[in-house]
Amino acid sequence: MGIVVQKYGGSSVSDASAIKRVARRIVEAKKAGNDVVVAVSAMGDSTDELLDLASQVSPLPPARELDMLLTSGERISMALVAMAISDLGYSARSFTGSQAGVITDSVHGKAKIIDVTPGRISDALGEGHIVIVAGFQGVSADTKEITTLGRGGTDTTAVALAAALDADVCEIYTDVDGVFTADPRIVPAARKLDRVTYEEMLELAACGAKILHLRCVEYARNHDIPIHVRSSFSQLDGTWVTGSIDDLPEPGTQESSMEQAIIAGVAHDRSEAKVTVVGVPDKVGEAARIFEALSAAQINLDMIVQNVSAAATNLTDISFTLPRSDGQTAMAALAGLQSAVGFDSLLYDDHIGKVSLIGAGMRSHPGVTAKFFSGLAQAGVNIGMISTSEIRISVVVSEEDVDAAVAATHTAFDLDADEVEAVVYGGSGR
Amino acid sequence: MGIVVQKYGGSSVSDASAIKRVARRIVEAKKAGNDVVVAVSAMGDSTDELLDLASQVSPLPPARELDMLLTSGERISMALVAMAISDLGYSARSFTGSQAGVITDSVHGKAKIIDVTPGRISDALGEGHIVIVAGFQGVSADTKEITTLGRGGTDTTAVALAAALDADVCEIYTDVDGVFTADPRIVPAARKLDRVTYEEMLELAACGAKILHLRCVEYARNHDIPIHVRSSFSQLDGTWVTGSIDDLPEPGTQESSMEQAIIAGVAHDRSEAKVTVVGVPDKVGEAARIFEALSAAQINLDMIVQNVSAAATNLTDISFTLPRSDGQTAMAALAGLQSAVGFDSLLYDDHIGKVSLIGAGMRSHPGVTAKFFSGLAQAGVNIGMISTSEIRISVVVSEEDVDAAVAATHTAFDLDADEVEAVVYGGSGR
Repeated sequence: MGIVVQKYGGSSVSDASAIKRVARRIVEAKKAGNDVVVAVSAMGDSTDELLDLASQVSPLPPARELDMLLTSGERISMALVAMAISDLGYSARSFTGSQAGVITDSVHGKAKIIDVTPGRISDALGEGHIVIVAGFQGVSADTKEITTLGRGGTDTTAVALAAALDADVCEIYTDVDGVFTADPRIVPAARKLDRVTYEEMLELAACGAKILHLRCVEYARNHDIPIHVRSSFSQLDGTWVTGSIDDLPEPGTQESSMEQAIIAGVAHDRSEAKVTVVGVPDKVGEAARIFEALSAAQINLDMIVQNVSAAATNLTDISFTLPRSDGQTAMAALAGLQSAVGFDSLLYDDHIGKVSLIGAGMRSHPGVTAKFFSGLAQAGVNIGMISTSEIRISVVVSEEDVDAAVAATHTAFDLDADEVEAVVYGGSGR
Repeated sequence: MGIVVQKYGGSSVSDASAIKRVARRIVEAKKAGNDVVVAVSAMGDSTDELLDLASQVSPLPPARELDMLLTSGERISMALVAMAISDLGYSARSFTGSQAGVITDSVHGKAKIIDVTPGRISDALGEGHIVIVAGFQGVSADTKEITTLGRGGTDTTAVALAAALDADVCEIYTDVDGVFTADPRIVPAARKLDRVTYEEMLELAACGAKILHLRCVEYARNHDIPIHVRSSFSQLDGTWVTGSIDDLPEPGTQESSMEQAIIAGVAHDRSEAKVTVVGVPDKVGEAARIFEALSAAQINLDMIVQNVSAAATNLTDISFTLPRSDGQTAMAALAGLQSAVGFDSLLYDDHIGKVSLIGAGMRSHPGVTAKFFSGLAQAGVNIGMISTSEIRISVVVSEEDVDAAVAATHTAFDLDADEVEAVVYGGSGR
């Protein structure tokens, strides 16, 4: 008996029969003695349909009005879910983000949740109702305007509600059985993880695993909310995202080597491009000028690599990766800088992919990098860039080598399952 | 230079191109130097589509959740209208009913506006924005729940905003040129009225003219807001609804007979049924028991007729009309009363129509009733029931006689236009 927060994405509420199925699932949790709060996304493709309508009316709609428009999608699904629950003989109350007390900053289109004041939710729970909350949306603290949280926002809504209500668990329902050691479309022998730490999940999300969104995992880690990622199509246990790598046994101790999986999974990402600034004078401040220009253009960089400069010329090359969608903007910003910085040229490559190996255990296993790279070499994959964190190694490879690199790495670390599990893999909606 | 409130129904915002047309119209009013506030309905058939979705999920959805669902329709259209205005280089801000300060009672599905606190609207106007408000909706004063105003609610929203903002005019845009002397589909020679008093418009609306909804006209009369009913497809002047019959020249004076049109129009209504309670004992309190039972069943009656009782039996018949949709409920309520009241039997007839002649001038022209009835007689129409008010005479006729009765009456009172105007006639949305 406690508070359970559940999240259902667009594919789980795509039509009337899907909504009825979700309602039965919600009622089960209530029957089990829990107070139940549910965050829902808009139905199926309805957000894209609204965006299409907006583009027909205006090529560049104001962000405030776009938020007004898009938030209607969750309003529709939440009311329908509440009706379906009521049809099962249970009482449900739906609340918009604003009514639910989801307070955000005022950045339309990608607002951040800054507080949740769940007074109306608590009252409704106290009266015995199941509570349905529109995901992906809130109201800005200062301007009282309706905001949206950006893609994946409903995951974050669910975790934020769980934190504010001190829930026992935040269940993220999706169309796959949990978090896998690799994308099963590439590696049929990929295994479902029973548990993964917040840090590993953050790295997986940042490296292209689409199952959970970065901000949702950050929020859960900051508030220590256990996330249970599971399928809305089965009763199976999914993947628990919980615990920190700091709580794992000390690297190098006997406990650690016995109990701890070295690698959580292999992630990949085909959404990035690589830019190389060739022949940058190796002087103090030149790199800063380059990255200040990119920052001013609102571009988020991912991997950044600078090698030591060639002794003869005192010039160096700086490479970085960024979302392909930002490629043109970045190149324009850098081109305007050429004479001032005095670099030789710019290279742009969007036929790349990133493959990342993630695992808390690699802290205590020095051979991980060597095994990773030799696996890639045996598969004939050439490495373009390398970047590492405490629990991650990422490489940039040619786009057509991504599948081979993921499969080879998965095998090299003995992650392949004995039997191939039947899974359906797809995006998790928003 | 003043404040203009405009209302656009669902057919005026049915798709992207219609929304762009409406936006141009709104911008014209702004260019003319006005502060502009617009109430919009949901796009085209979208409300019916939402109702269909609801029925797929639950045969009897809770009224609160139905209001949550339906209000998303106006949210979509208002945001799109604001975007289209912005695309024309003007600044627009959309507001939900709740944000616009439309305060209602808490009767979900047919809430009444009890106050409008337009602080955010006034602020936005002061900043130079065009304001778009979601019609048909508000927020309840006590429970802070989202409510809807029922069919025709957006008309009422517009008039209530006009009253709260002390607007110069409330323009109701529709798909016809104004209020006509009869339904042009039945009487091609029907003429557009240039002006009609609130009282006449109330009677027309109550008697089946679908162009304006009763509550909207009541609200306008109570707050003395001039309504201008006009086409969103032309620049023509439409019909002004303004002024009271009390301000018209005294009946019988020379002015009155010279200036005042006797008849405003002929309305008809095919949505009612007739119930007759046969053989009711003519005792004090028997009629009251019958109508108390109907009231307890939440049935709104229209015409009620009781004749003097036959001297021999001391029994009387009571007939009344009511919406056909309430017919079954009414018959069930009355059947349960038979032994207690002791009436003979119940008759039910839903093959009826009501034809009403409306005009402030009939107060001063005693021959109106005679001319009406002789016109019907010449057309071979039999009269089933009669009811009158100060400025209206209504008769119940057989359903198949409605068209002939309307046409004959229109001709009898010389309302036929010399030339038939080209008009499109339809419902005015909600």
